[in-house]
Amino acid sequence: MTVITEANAAVAQELLAQLTLDEKIGMIHGAGLFRTEGVPRLGIPALKMSDGPMGVRREFDNDSWDAIYGSRDYVTYLPCGSAVASTWNTELAHDAGRVLGAEARGRGKDVILGPSVNIKRSPLCGRNFEYMSEDPCLTTGQCVPFIEGVQESDVAACVKHFVANNQETDRLHVDEIIADRALRELYLPAFEASVKQAHVLSVMGAYNLVNGERCCESPTFLGRVLRQEWDFDGVVISDWGGVFRSKESAQSGLDVEMSVTADFDDYKFAQPLKAAIQRGEVDEHDVDRKVLHILCMMDALHMLDHAGTPERESGCYANAEHRDAALAVAQESVVLLKNEEHALPLRRQELTRLLVVGANADRVHSNGGGSAEIKALYEVTPLLGLCGQLGGNVEVRYVPGYEALQAHGQTADWQSESLTDGTQRATQGDASRSEALRDEAVRLAGEYEHVIFVGGLDHDHDLEGMDRADMRLPYGQDELIEALLAANPGTVISLVAGSPVEMPWADRAKAIVWSWYGGTEAGTALAQVLLGDVNPSGHLPESFPMRLEDSPAHSIGSFGLKGSVEYAEDIYVGYRYYDSKEVPVRFCFGHGLSYTSFEYDGLDVHEVGDAIRLRCQVTNTGNVRGKAVAQVYLGLEGTGEDRPAKELKGYRKVELEAGEHRELIIEIPVDQALRYYSSSQGRYAIAPRAKVYVGQSVEDIRLTGALD
Amino acid sequence: MTVITEANAAVAQELLAQLTLDEKIGMIHGAGLFRTEGVPRLGIPALKMSDGPMGVRREFDNDSWDAIYGSRDYVTYLPCGSAVASTWNTELAHDAGRVLGAEARGRGKDVILGPSVNIKRSPLCGRNFEYMSEDPCLTTGQCVPFIEGVQESDVAACVKHFVANNQETDRLHVDEIIADRALRELYLPAFEASVKQAHVLSVMGAYNLVNGERCCESPTFLGRVLRQEWDFDGVVISDWGGVFRSKESAQSGLDVEMSVTADFDDYKFAQPLKAAIQRGEVDEHDVDRKVLHILCMMDALHMLDHAGTPERESGCYANAEHRDAALAVAQESVVLLKNEEHALPLRRQELTRLLVVGANADRVHSNGGGSAEIKALYEVTPLLGLCGQLGGNVEVRYVPGYEALQAHGQTADWQSESLTDGTQRATQGDASRSEALRDEAVRLAGEYEHVIFVGGLDHDHDLEGMDRADMRLPYGQDELIEALLAANPGTVISLVAGSPVEMPWADRAKAIVWSWYGGTEAGTALAQVLLGDVNPSGHLPESFPMRLEDSPAHSIGSFGLKGSVEYAEDIYVGYRYYDSKEVPVRFCFGHGLSYTSFEYDGLDVHEVGDAIRLRCQVTNTGNVRGKAVAQVYLGLEGTGEDRPAKELKGYRKVELEAGEHRELIIEIPVDQALRYYSSSQGRYAIAPRAKVYVGQSVEDIRLTGALD
Repeated sequence: MTVITEANAAVAQELLAQLTLDEKIGMIHGAGLFRTEGVPRLGIPALKMSDGPMGVRREFDNDSWDAIYGSRDYVTYLPCGSAVASTWNTELAHDAGRVLGAEARGRGKDVILGPSVNIKRSPLCGRNFEYMSEDPCLTTGQCVPFIEGVQESDVAACVKHFVANNQETDRLHVDEIIADRALRELYLPAFEASVKQAHVLSVMGAYNLVNGERCCESPTFLGRVLRQEWDFDGVVISDWGGVFRSKESAQSGLDVEMSVTADFDDYKFAQPLKAAIQRGEVDEHDVDRKVLHILCMMDALHMLDHAGTPERESGCYANAEHRDAALAVAQESVVLLKNEEHALPLRRQELTRLLVVGANADRVHSNGGGSAEIKALYEVTPLLGLCGQLGGNVEVRYVPGYEALQAHGQTADWQSESLTDGTQRATQGDASRSEALRDEAVRLAGEYEHVIFVGGLDHDHDLEGMDRADMRLPYGQDELIEALLAANPGTVISLVAGSPVEMPWADRAKAIVWSWYGGTEAGTALAQVLLGDVNPSGHLPESFPMRLEDSPAHSIGSFGLKGSVEYAEDIYVGYRYYDSKEVPVRFCFGHGLSYTSFEYDGLDVHEVGDAIRLRCQVTNTGNVRGKAVAQVYLGLEGTGEDRPAKELKGYRKVELEAGEHRELIIEIPVDQALRYYSSSQGRYAIAPRAKVYVGQSVEDIRLTGALD
Repeated sequence: MTVITEANAAVAQELLAQLTLDEKIGMIHGAGLFRTEGVPRLGIPALKMSDGPMGVRREFDNDSWDAIYGSRDYVTYLPCGSAVASTWNTELAHDAGRVLGAEARGRGKDVILGPSVNIKRSPLCGRNFEYMSEDPCLTTGQCVPFIEGVQESDVAACVKHFVANNQETDRLHVDEIIADRALRELYLPAFEASVKQAHVLSVMGAYNLVNGERCCESPTFLGRVLRQEWDFDGVVISDWGGVFRSKESAQSGLDVEMSVTADFDDYKFAQPLKAAIQRGEVDEHDVDRKVLHILCMMDALHMLDHAGTPERESGCYANAEHRDAALAVAQESVVLLKNEEHALPLRRQELTRLLVVGANADRVHSNGGGSAEIKALYEVTPLLGLCGQLGGNVEVRYVPGYEALQAHGQTADWQSESLTDGTQRATQGDASRSEALRDEAVRLAGEYEHVIFVGGLDHDHDLEGMDRADMRLPYGQDELIEALLAANPGTVISLVAGSPVEMPWADRAKAIVWSWYGGTEAGTALAQVLLGDVNPSGHLPESFPMRLEDSPAHSIGSFGLKGSVEYAEDIYVGYRYYDSKEVPVRFCFGHGLSYTSFEYDGLDVHEVGDAIRLRCQVTNTGNVRGKAVAQVYLGLEGTGEDRPAKELKGYRKVELEAGEHRELIIEIPVDQALRYYSSSQGRYAIAPRAKVYVGQSVEDIRLTGALD
């Protein structure tokens, strides 16, 4: 694990003393789209950065968005943040981070722009697929090992977006009004843990404003919270184009300004800042502080050559070991949402003909999403995964069932007209074609005994710079699914997406399988789950509401507005709302079925030192090996304030052979378990007592206890 | 291993008796570009075929060359036939075949059109990359386990092209005049072993004529040799478009006519044959014999559903295990041709900057070559392999050095104008651009300590339907290499190709590495060899002459002619010529260096029963683990006929730790070791005595003995 030490600081101080103002200015802003200027005379290299959380992005020209690297920058495409969270497996999160870090270093990068840890406040946020969860405990639990994994390769993770980049609409200018309690309990904890537990080396300042302060110049967030309370001495990098004023950002905790245009000298931290210093409006010491942060991080990453510098990790990319790791994450990220009458897994010996319907069966997702796009060495689609594994004894018929045409007028804020004019557009003429595709699929569904639908969303919907307009499946998929289920009630519904969709047909489906964008081996993992070669163990890292209007932000109409958004739901985000207010959801937080079953008993809870120790027994009562996720929720009591009925405080994934019985011990620091932010006192407090729940989801509670 | 049994024949006979003439006619010719017609009422399926030896080809429409399968037919791209031979590792040949068979079956195929075992008579043959060797013993040794591997998955290998498809020029009409001795000793043995040892289930009839007989109607080759002498009861399939006359082909040993056009009813074995039968010109029994062969093979492949049919293998494709196997083959196929002053491997710890020059560093080869083209799931280029493995501590600069523009006017016989008009053409304007590219590369080569050139050929040269015009490197590479070596004498020369090239600069290069088209992980394997992570163990499966005119067929001007070609060099092909006639070559047959060294001693040779047993000691006298290839050559004596000085009769690859010492025992049946075809007697004979040589190439002989 990379941590900034006193020795790093001494090296940094010595170099700082030798730098001219111009050299310092060069180090704190982009001199390329993804790099700063180095100081060759002192052996200070440029700082090289790359998007993003799902792999290292393709190489661009220094000063244009032209790709320049031929076959050289194909990389491993990792499962998205939601998928990493959906595993509830901290070791796999570490593996994903380790691969990302090794590939970033392998590609010569110093900073990789991820993980993305914003809380999923609404199902519609365009970047939800990058984010992990609606819950800070799960986000923290997964992002800390992820960051540790990244930084093993002498690469800085850059945790983003600090803070509360929870919508894409008007993201450059929206002011989010968020109460302290919601900030402290929901929106800040993953960043806090990234700094304090994972020792993340860099943090990305968000585009948006919070409570009137622009994140990239915020005295509250960059100053008081990050630098003072959390004692962060790493580097704060602006989101690309997130700096608007030289002086205010210079005087804040921000260190590096990056942007999307090639007029590097005009960046706010370039000539305009130098002029402000020369006019006496900004103190050069503000620049020194930034340069010190940068040099400290560089030394921690072994980028500075001096006596005692260990050899830097070299990394590697696009290799078989990384693909294997990506597959392992994908396998455990798939969530079996519903499985009645043992519809799944498909039994190979009964399978002679299989109908696959749905455009997502035959579509790759690596090449979209915005800055998270990946130039994947390859991506196994669900259709390829199924056909490749089923082999030649099963006749697989594939029909799309619908056309995935981008709806007219929907473009992300970074997509120029010239970019999007060339893409396909829905027109009047498509209606009859869509109808013909649907009719063909439905007719065939009646003729085949086994039918799998693979639909969902894609990166025309889960997309940086644009929120979804609604929570419905696009391209007429709901009507198609209804018709498929009518024609063949056994149709297995498989959805691939980065954020929840309404499922009005859910009661009529026997089996529903959910996959997040799953990386280079996504289709392999899905097929393995469908065929029973992998026992699903993913659990939802967010609630799937019945309807958009059920979700807290939307029930009060406070999402996706321009100008200003009030987070009036306070801490009642996700299951904290549905569970406390008893609003029924389609699939609850933490939900995920298995091909086996688990029983829990013997809960024992007591304090041991500074920690709460829970002990219980878990038994695999089914016929196949499987992985259980024991989820620990607390209901804080005696606080004198309104609190959610349950809050996730810990979890543990455990693999059990059929019939195996095991004792589980989960320890949670008291400070983490019972801490809450008291609105009335304006500070953190410790609850005097709590109800304790152990379950397989927030609704499927198996054991209860109490803590006094 | 799949073998046709009496039980298969009984099933076939019973079905045959129930078939109408129309049904039988449907079974013996293409009813799609890659399938015949089945007989559903009797449970007889269509016979489904696919190209080709390096993987299963993409899926085409039934009656057009339109690709139809979206993401579904990406497959594992295997190293080419020359690469499989270059490993001299029979287990790897088996693995390659096993992967090919599993993928063919996984894709639902019954017959996979490979391996290609024609003898490399000239360096210029367009399909040399598919072929294994200039030597029948090496070809046999590798193709037998390859075929056995294929057929493990209940898929028929289709060994091709029977016989002597050794040039592409005029391939549909050329008549090759070949003496019996050359046929028996060079051009037939791999087919004979495929039938007798590997029990291959199908054989492809070649396009060309031999000694006046068209191969797809040849009484000599299909009748006397294949069916009578070798007792082949599998299926003979025509090359696509290789049948010209209904009656003659119907009366020959050919069973199935396939072609490239969609007028299936007009195929010679379709309505024209039916008409000929009705006119009494062809006996229906001729058709019955073909149908019987087909039904026998189908039953052997478990395609016919009846009591006692075991479940057919299902296969699988595009999976990680197959990629690993492809990598293993690629690793052992790379040949280290020259390595002076320990130029290789590159020492990572000394490497900070690396210049890579050459268009083949950044080019994929899977998508070319003709029918051997592969829709690879991915292909790691040399540049990606190097960069991915070196990681971020080495600054890798890549410049192409030349432009790989297809020369005007060169098109394969199957490429229509419409296909090729869209490809890039060399024009006058390119000359100055080429010069600029060369100048840039040469200038940089002087500035970098470490330079790797990756050039060679590509599938615009190694291409079905077209022979090369000369043996020189295209695109001005010779001039570029000379200039690179002048600018930086340490430049490592790495060539990727499917057939030999002249290397006029070879004496000035310190290190030369040869890679055949190496499949999906080609670039990984090459980089591993260059970086010393894999110790090279490939050995040339063919001689690399100094100049084209040195090669036997060209020295007498008898290659690539239209109309008729006389194989006047007789059995003096490849090293049988160079070695016997003492014509110096650039790199001899069997040559291949290692990063370690091996010593041989203690040769003992004597007959044990029907075999000759050789014993010797091999010692790894270097510092790293490596694989030695012990090659056994015999010089037959006392035959009273002119014979080659040496002929390969056996080989064994063995891995030895540094310093390890091991006894090797190689047994060769007497019949195989001492058999020759006596021109004077017109039959096989056994030589009374022979010189015995054990070496690391045909020139690098380490031990000699004698056999009486």
